[in-house]
Amino acid sequence: MGDPAGVGPEILIKALADPAVRQRAVLLIVGNANIFEQAIALVGASLPIRRVQGFDDPRFDPEAVNVLDVIDLAHWSPGQIQPDCGRAAVQAVETATRMVLQGEADGIVTAPLHKAAAHQASFPFPGHTEFLASLCGVAETRLMLVCDELRVVHATGHLSLRQVLDILTPERIVETVELTLPTLRWLGYEQPRIAVAALNPHAGEQGKFGNEDDRIVAPAVRQLQAAGHKVFGPVPADTVFWQAKQGAFDLVVALYHDQGHIPVKVLAFERAVNVTAGLPIIRTSPDHGVAFDIAWQNKANAESMKAAILLAAKMAQRKAAEATLMGKTAPRQ
Amino acid sequence: MGDPAGVGPEILIKALADPAVRQRAVLLIVGNANIFEQAIALVGASLPIRRVQGFDDPRFDPEAVNVLDVIDLAHWSPGQIQPDCGRAAVQAVETATRMVLQGEADGIVTAPLHKAAAHQASFPFPGHTEFLASLCGVAETRLMLVCDELRVVHATGHLSLRQVLDILTPERIVETVELTLPTLRWLGYEQPRIAVAALNPHAGEQGKFGNEDDRIVAPAVRQLQAAGHKVFGPVPADTVFWQAKQGAFDLVVALYHDQGHIPVKVLAFERAVNVTAGLPIIRTSPDHGVAFDIAWQNKANAESMKAAILLAAKMAQRKAAEATLMGKTAPRQ
Repeated sequence: MGDPAGVGPEILIKALADPAVRQRAVLLIVGNANIFEQAIALVGASLPIRRVQGFDDPRFDPEAVNVLDVIDLAHWSPGQIQPDCGRAAVQAVETATRMVLQGEADGIVTAPLHKAAAHQASFPFPGHTEFLASLCGVAETRLMLVCDELRVVHATGHLSLRQVLDILTPERIVETVELTLPTLRWLGYEQPRIAVAALNPHAGEQGKFGNEDDRIVAPAVRQLQAAGHKVFGPVPADTVFWQAKQGAFDLVVALYHDQGHIPVKVLAFERAVNVTAGLPIIRTSPDHGVAFDIAWQNKANAESMKAAILLAAKMAQRKAAEATLMGKTAPRQ
Repeated sequence: MGDPAGVGPEILIKALADPAVRQRAVLLIVGNANIFEQAIALVGASLPIRRVQGFDDPRFDPEAVNVLDVIDLAHWSPGQIQPDCGRAAVQAVETATRMVLQGEADGIVTAPLHKAAAHQASFPFPGHTEFLASLCGVAETRLMLVCDELRVVHATGHLSLRQVLDILTPERIVETVELTLPTLRWLGYEQPRIAVAALNPHAGEQGKFGNEDDRIVAPAVRQLQAAGHKVFGPVPADTVFWQAKQGAFDLVVALYHDQGHIPVKVLAFERAVNVTAGLPIIRTSPDHGVAFDIAWQNKANAESMKAAILLAAKMAQRKAAEATLMGKTAPRQ
């Protein structure tokens, strides 16, 4: 559901109103059904609502908005930071994640939550991703951005450029690629061609503008190559994203937040999908926030949410096929 | 001419072979006519060659390849670093620049030179731009990239990210904008709307990821605003280029090389034009190098060279109109 005071309910209904979305994924909203009745009215969608207990509920209707109506929310206002809304969003994430971990669902798509609202409700994590990592019992994840033209994973997150320079190591780059390999398989890349972007202009031009590319990036690439992966780099950052867009690489490893966000957002601002690499489950989300300034005004663009749902569905099919294959080829006990 | 061993002669002939280019600019190549006879043969262009003394020469033919044949070059090989070729390229730049400074031409378009070849010929400058600055008697210039979607100027150049963090000051950002204003006028922006990209992700989010945006970028923006300019920022770098592409800004100030190169190259790899801001003359160049690996094989893409010529022609018209206007409105002696 995301934070109900944000654009989440609206973009979810807009996405579900698209028959192409309903055709390609069986969707259950974890949230509060009253909220979604209001969102249906806001959008003017001609979709009925069904309060269900799960995907197996006989009332489940693939042509309706199916809500697992487990989140209480008595009082709330649109476009405001409210602890009750923060709590509701967090509860929805937790319930949905547990369903995926228990095999009741194939993946989770998260609508935006507002960090300050969640923190007002005593949420002990910096954001969505750390919470998901904790629920899944993993220590490290990486932010991946996916659009038609590019797939990019980030070796570092919300850090200043100076902090990036201080913490970047070959190990972090190697780990970034390793964490992303399962996600790449679910995206259809069994033998991915991976480029690691250079840190300095022209990859430092033989040490003329910094030695980090020789000292940090190159050893990581060699280590990954020695492990049998098709990894290239350091590739100058001003050409690597264009090369990937032309099909030369299946993934670009960006070394810092803006290095990866700039090319994806300039190409696909309203279409990019956020994928969390490193989780044992599929998790996608639209690449934007709660947008309180336009929430509940029927103004929000649902393209990124649609793309997030369709991508999760595509990944789930491949993940299921992989699981079947592994089951078949595993030695019998 | 650029370095004759590179792709310069080929892309110049390909550009001249396009009637749209010949229609919109009166072009004189400063170089060696024999080289261009060979380039015409390589490309298979049906253009005659004219050895002329200048634009006023009665032999000048707008439908031909007009060469100011002042550069000697006895021996050379394609695709190689050679001091004679480096020297020839440097001499061509110097001659062409002096013609512009003396009012014989309206602007200069430079084909790529190879720095190592120039340095073998005792060229005392790091590159093209520093040489042009010296010929024009200016201390500071800035690299601007122009494509249909974006105009970007760089506050810093070929430096490591760590060096950028060490040298970036409010004064440098202010100076970058001031150096770029005349170029923006020649590009048609009298009252440009300028965004300064943030250094850290989300512009540091109130100091959470570094204070450089508050400490360095914000004061520069305030100073420029106080001087009457329409300057905004720090704008998070992951959205500013998309906003500029949508028309919100006429110029983005990138704080470091890759921050500005990534969005332009991912959008317009073969169409981007390099413009030198801060020179008293118009100078454009294609946004690529000598490409020795494909030189003299009739494989080079001339789109960036065509765009560089057409942009210089467009700027020259506006610069001439501006000079006329200033002449008319200046008080009589």
